[in-house]
Order: sequence, then structure tokens, then C-alpha cells
Amino acid sequence: MEKWLNSLKTNSPQEGFELAIKLARMGVKYTQPDMNVLKASRNDYAENAEFLIAASQVIAIHFQTVARANNYWNK
Amino acid sequence: MEKWLNSLKTNSPQEGFELAIKLARMGVKYTQPDMNVLKASRNDYAENAEFLIAASQVIAIHFQTVARANNYWNK
Amino acid sequence: MEKWLNSLKTNSPQEGFELAIKLARMGVKYTQPDMNVLKASRNDYAENAEFLIAASQVIAIHFQTVARANNYWNK
Amino acid sequence: MEKWLNSLKTNSPQEGFELAIKLARMGVKYTQPDMNVLKASRNDYAENAEFLIAASQVIAIHFQTVARANNYWNK
Amino acid sequence: MEKWLNSLKTNSPQEGFELAIKLARMGVKYTQPDMNVLKASRNDYAENAEFLIAASQVIAIHFQTVARANNYWNK
Amino acid sequence: MEKWLNSLKTNSPQEGFELAIKLARMGVKYTQPDMNVLKASRNDYAENAEFLIAASQVIAIHFQTVARANNYWNK
Repeated sequence: MEKWLNSLKTNSPQEGFELAIKLARMGVKYTQPDMNVLKASRNDYAENAEFLIAASQVIAIHFQTVARANNYWNK
Repeated sequence: MEKWLNSLKTNSPQEGFELAIKLARMGVKYTQPDMNVLKASRNDYAENAEFLIAASQVIAIHFQTVARANNYWNK
Repeated sequence: MEKWLNSLKTNSPQEGFELAIKLARMGVKYTQPDMNVLKASRNDYAENAEFLIAASQVIAIHFQTVARANNYWNK
Repeated sequence: MEKWLNSLKTNSPQEGFELAIKLARMGVKYTQPDMNVLKASRNDYAENAEFLIAASQVIAIHFQTVARANNYWNK
Repeated sequence: MEKWLNSLKTNSPQEGFELAIKLARMGVKYTQPDMNVLKASRNDYAENAEFLIAASQVIAIHFQTVARANNYWNK
Repeated sequence: MEKWLNSLKTNSPQEGFELAIKLARMGVKYTQPDMNVLKASRNDYAENAEFLIAASQVIAIHFQTVARANNYWNK
């Protein structure tokens, strides 16, 4: 796979949150690299509250990692 | 997306808990940005105990992060 | 919401566990503030082993946070 | 509830694991204090692999906490 | 139960991973000690992707604990 | 099982993420070593969004471990 992750450092907590979202999506993409299947599956579920909560949970786990890598953006 | 997260610091544990709730909701919102779909989905599930527990779990994971960023509000 | 969380400090591990339970319940309550809906939903599920295990898991995550905030009650 | 948790310290990793099991069970018991309901529910599910894995997961989360409280039983 | 866990220390990350698997299995075994029920249940589910992923998740949580107990096998 | 994990150290966050994926897959493989069953099961589910999110979650947990072992790739 091409280079997509150079660093866990971000300039702000919000950018860190957005990196966590990217990490969650890449976990899915490595498991199902076919983008057409991925989009079909995602469309089926994106209105489903259980799916949305599960996605939010994966983001939360990655945000723990990113926040720690950035020392919680404390100076 | 507009700026919504400037800092993980809060004045009290309760404000930290409320920030954790916001983080959990933003994880959902980034995954399903259409507010109408989101509200419909949420209404379907908000009476469902499994959904409520899953939401509580995501909040718990984010609260770990926020509590740590605030050194558990210990002086 | 009124003030319900002043500190993560407790006098003993057991009080810490009970605080973790409170945090798990408040995560649910913020998501579904209507107490009648909450009670109905809870009654439906409180005999359900999957629900009970899921509730126990959220408690476990919060207990990690509370235990750490109290330095595991080590002197 | 009576006193059931005095310390997270144990003499060995195995005792720590057994404490983690107790913590997982107490999370269930606080949520459903009626022992008859609990036993009926547990009997229904104890042969169910999904339930067994979920129980094992809660134990794993508590074991993280207990292991850390004991500094992983390193001298 | 007989003695099965003396230490979280292992000689290598791979042995640590295998210890994490053992811990995940013991969590199941303490919950359902009847080996016949356990094997029947396991056979039913071992071809089920959801079960396999859930088992992998419990292993991941225990591997966090074991890796940390071994300081990530860094010298 | 043959030797497959020598170290948690990687040269970059992306390699660390890819190691996390390997760890998630090995957790599945140890639980179901029969590759034919594994592939059949995986094909059934790889188009299923719930499965993909669950896989992404296991990767996220392992990525926490790997990131920490590498001190988040900070110099």
C-alpha cells in the first residue's frame, strides 16, 4: 500500500481526532481493499445506529493513541 | 468541518465527562454527516438498551482519554 | 444537568467500583434523559445476559479510569 | 451492599486473574441484584459462545487494571 | 483451580502473544468449566467470523497487559 | 507454530499499523488454524460492515500496543 501515515503528531486535538477517524477507516480498508464492496457495504449501514456507534468506538480507541502520542496537546 | 475541539482540558471531572459525550457524538457525526439521517436513526434506537449501553461504552473510552489529559483533576 | 460528579477520588476500591457504576449509568442517562423510556428499556433487558455483560464491560472501562485516578488505592 | 472489595493487591498473577473474574461478576450483580433472575439468565447463556467470549472480554479489561495495581507482579 | 499462571513474563513477544491466548481461554473456562459444553459451543462457533473476531479482540486486550508487563520486550 | 513475531519495533507508524493488522489476523488464526474454514468464513463476512468495523477495532487495540512499544515513533 502507498504511504499514508507518516506521523501520529498533529497540531491540535481536532486534527488528532480526524487522524483517529482516518486510522479507523484504514483498518477497514486493509481488511476489504475493494472500494466498490466497501462503498456498497457502507451505504447499507451508514443509517444504522449500531454501525454508527461501533464506528465511533473504533475512533475513540484510536483517539486514545493519538492523544497520548501528542501528550494530550499539553504544552 | 468547522472548529469544534480546541483542548482536552476541562475545569472539572463533570465537564470532562460532558466533553467525552461530545467526542462520542462527533465520532458518529463524522461517519454520518447528514443530520436528518442521524436523527432518524437515533430516534429509532434511543429506546433500545443495547444502543444505550454501546453509547455509554464509547463515552467511557473517551472519558479515559479526557481524564488522563487532565491528570484526573488532581492538583 | 445538575452537579453530580465532583471528583474521581474515593476512599476505597469498592467505592471506586461504585463510582464506575455511576459513570456507566450517567453515560446512558445523558443519551436518553427521559427516565420513563430509560426504565422501560432497562426492564426489558435486565434479565438478558448479553445486556448484563455489556453493562459490566462499561463498568470495567470506567473502573480502569477511577482506579488510576486513585493510584490503585496504594499508599 | 456489604463489603466485598478491600484491595486490588494480590499475591500472584493467578489470584489477580481470579479477582478480575470477581470484578466482572460484581458488575453484573450490581446491575441485576436479583440472584434468581441472574442465575436463570446465566444458565440460558453459559453454553453460548458469544456470551462466553463477552464474559472473557470483561475479565480481560479488569485484569488490565488489577495487573497494573500490582505492578504486573514484578519485584 | 490448579495453578496455571505463575508469571506474566515471557522470553519473546510471540510467547507473550501465546500467553494472551491462554488468558483469553481461561476467561472462558472459568465462566463455563464444563469442558464438554465448552467444546460443543466452540465447535458451533469456530467457523463463525464474528466469533473469531471477538476472540481475537480478547486476545488483543490481554496482549496489551502482557506486553506492558514485559516492557514491550525492549532491552 | 513457526516463528512469526520477533519484535514490536517498527521503523514507522505505518509499519506499526501493518503489524497491528498482522497481530489481529494471528489472533484469528490461532483460534481457527484451518485455513480453508478461515477463508470461507472470511469471504462470507468481508462484505459485511459489522464485521469490517469489528476487525478495525481489533486492529485499533493492537495499534495501541505497538505504538506504545515504539514510544509513538517520537525521537
